[in-house]
Amino acid sequence: MQKTIHVRVPGTSANCGAGFDTLGLACTIYNDLTLTLTDRPGVQISIEGEGADFIPKDERNIVWKSVRYLLDKAGDTTFKGGILRMENHVPLSRGLGSSAAAIVAGLKAANTIIGNSYNRHELLELATAIEGHPDNVAPAVFGGFTVSLMNKERVECYAFMPKNNMKYVVAVPNFPLPTRKARAVLPQQVSREDAIFNIGRASMLVACLCRGNERMLPYALDDRLHQPYRASLIPGMEDVFAAAKKAGAYGACLSGAGPCLLAFTPNDDDLAHRVGESMRVTFANHCVRSRVLVLDLDRRGAHIINHE
Amino acid sequence: MQKTIHVRVPGTSANCGAGFDTLGLACTIYNDLTLTLTDRPGVQISIEGEGADFIPKDERNIVWKSVRYLLDKAGDTTFKGGILRMENHVPLSRGLGSSAAAIVAGLKAANTIIGNSYNRHELLELATAIEGHPDNVAPAVFGGFTVSLMNKERVECYAFMPKNNMKYVVAVPNFPLPTRKARAVLPQQVSREDAIFNIGRASMLVACLCRGNERMLPYALDDRLHQPYRASLIPGMEDVFAAAKKAGAYGACLSGAGPCLLAFTPNDDDLAHRVGESMRVTFANHCVRSRVLVLDLDRRGAHIINHE
Repeated sequence: MQKTIHVRVPGTSANCGAGFDTLGLACTIYNDLTLTLTDRPGVQISIEGEGADFIPKDERNIVWKSVRYLLDKAGDTTFKGGILRMENHVPLSRGLGSSAAAIVAGLKAANTIIGNSYNRHELLELATAIEGHPDNVAPAVFGGFTVSLMNKERVECYAFMPKNNMKYVVAVPNFPLPTRKARAVLPQQVSREDAIFNIGRASMLVACLCRGNERMLPYALDDRLHQPYRASLIPGMEDVFAAAKKAGAYGACLSGAGPCLLAFTPNDDDLAHRVGESMRVTFANHCVRSRVLVLDLDRRGAHIINHE
Repeated sequence: MQKTIHVRVPGTSANCGAGFDTLGLACTIYNDLTLTLTDRPGVQISIEGEGADFIPKDERNIVWKSVRYLLDKAGDTTFKGGILRMENHVPLSRGLGSSAAAIVAGLKAANTIIGNSYNRHELLELATAIEGHPDNVAPAVFGGFTVSLMNKERVECYAFMPKNNMKYVVAVPNFPLPTRKARAVLPQQVSREDAIFNIGRASMLVACLCRGNERMLPYALDDRLHQPYRASLIPGMEDVFAAAKKAGAYGACLSGAGPCLLAFTPNDDDLAHRVGESMRVTFANHCVRSRVLVLDLDRRGAHIINHE
C-alpha cells in the first residue's frame, strides 16, 4: 500500500523590520514536495534545485523528520517509509524561510495523506514545535502577512492579506548566514526607547498593510532591535537600504536574520526591477555578489497541487 | 474687536496595553471650551466640572498658554487677551488625557479664530511640542484610534476607525497619579524578550482593530513594558483586569499612565455595565474607591460646536 501527494510551500520573510519575531510574509517563491508514503520501511530522497548537493538524503532530512513527527503525533502505524522528491527554489540559510518551508511541506503532505487529522492552526503548532519559533512557519502555512505571538506555550497567529498591492524585491547575497550566528550578536537587554521605537513602527506597518495606506510605509520599516547588530554580518546593509529607497522603494529591511535584504516597492514591475538592480550594484560596491528576486505576495500558503 | 468660538475635545486613553507610547484612542467624554479672543490684554477664566477648584485661572492656565502659543507661532498681533469658559468632564491626572484635551482645545479654538492657519497634522505637531509626546494629543486631534511615532523631531500619526464595535469601560479611582510619578518607576533597560512580547501584542491589537477581528483581542491587550512596574502604584490593578475579563471583557489595560483602568468589551450595554461593576467592586476589595464610565469611541476628535 502507498499514497502520494504533491505539496507546494512558499518562501517567507520574517520580521519585516520592526516586527521582530512577530511579523512575517509569504512570497511567490516555492519549494515543491512529492511525498509517497509506503508500508515498507526505508526512505528514498531526491532533490533538485537549492541545496541539492548538501541537504541530507537520509533519515536526518528535515522534511522526512517532519513527516515522521506528524505520523507519530497522529498515532499512524500504517506508513513505515517514504519516497520524497523535492524541487527547491527557496535559497538555503539566506533568511527566506527554507527550513520553515521544509517543515511545513513535510507536515502538510503527511497530514493530507492520513486524511487531514490536523487543521491549519494545529499544523502551525506542530511546525512551531519543530522550528522553535512561529514567525516563518506561520506565513508558510497561511500565506499573506502574519502576526504571530507566543502565549505561554501556545502560538497565536492572525493571518491577513494586505490591501496594498506591492512588489517584494529581495537581494540574495552569495553567502549563507546561519540564524544561530545572526542571533548570537543580539543583546539580551535593550533600551526602553528602542523597544518603543519598534512598537511604533511595527504597529504602523500593520495599520498600513491592513488599511492599504502607503504614505506612512516609509516610516514603518525601520528597526532598532536586531538590524543594527546584524549589520556587521552583512557588508553594505545600510547602503543597500538607502539605495532601494532612492530607487523608489517604500523602505527595506533584513529578511529574517539575513543575509537577504527585502525592499517593499509600489506594484510597478519596472520600478521593482530598478530597485533590485540598485540593491545588487550597491552590494557589489561592498564586494558582495548577489542576485535579485522580484516577488509578489503569496496568498495561499502551503497547498496541495494534485492528488495522484 | 473680539471673536468667540466653541470647541469640544475628547478624553483619550494612551498605550492600550502593549502599544506603549504609541497607541491611543479617543472616547466619548469631553471638555468644552468657549474661547473669546479680544484686542484688549488680560485673561479671564471660568471653569465648571473637573478641576474647577484647583486649575489655575490666570496666565498659567494650560488652555490659555496653548492659545498664546498658537497665536505667537502664527505671528498674530490682533488678539491680546481672552475670555475662557471651560466645562470639563475629563477627570484630571487619571490617565484620560486631560492635559492633552486642554492643549488641543486651546490650539483648535485659537486656530479657528485666526482662520485655520494650521491643518490637523500641524495642530498635532504644535500640541506634541507642548505636551512632550503625541500619544494622547493624537487621538484628541483626530478621534478614533491612532498610531503615533516620533521620526527624528517630527510626529508621524496614522488615525483610523476600528471595524470592531466595542464599549470602552473605564474604572476611575478616586486618587490622582501624576504621569511624572508613574514614569519614574519605569526601567531604562528592558529584556529583548519583553520588547518582543509587546511588539507582538501591539501588532496583534492593530490588526484586530483594523480588520474587525475579535477572536484575537484577548491576546492583544497584555503588556510587559510599563504595567507591571506601575502595578505597585495602583492597588488591585491585576485583580481588576482579571475581574473585567471574567465579566466578559476582551481584555483590560492601564489607561495612559493610570490610575484609570480601561476594559475593551463587546458592544453590549448590559455586559459593559456588568464589567464596570465588577471592576469597581474589585477595586473596592483593595480599598480603592472608584467610579465607572461606560464609553464609546469618539470618531470626530476636536471639533467646533458652533460659531457665534
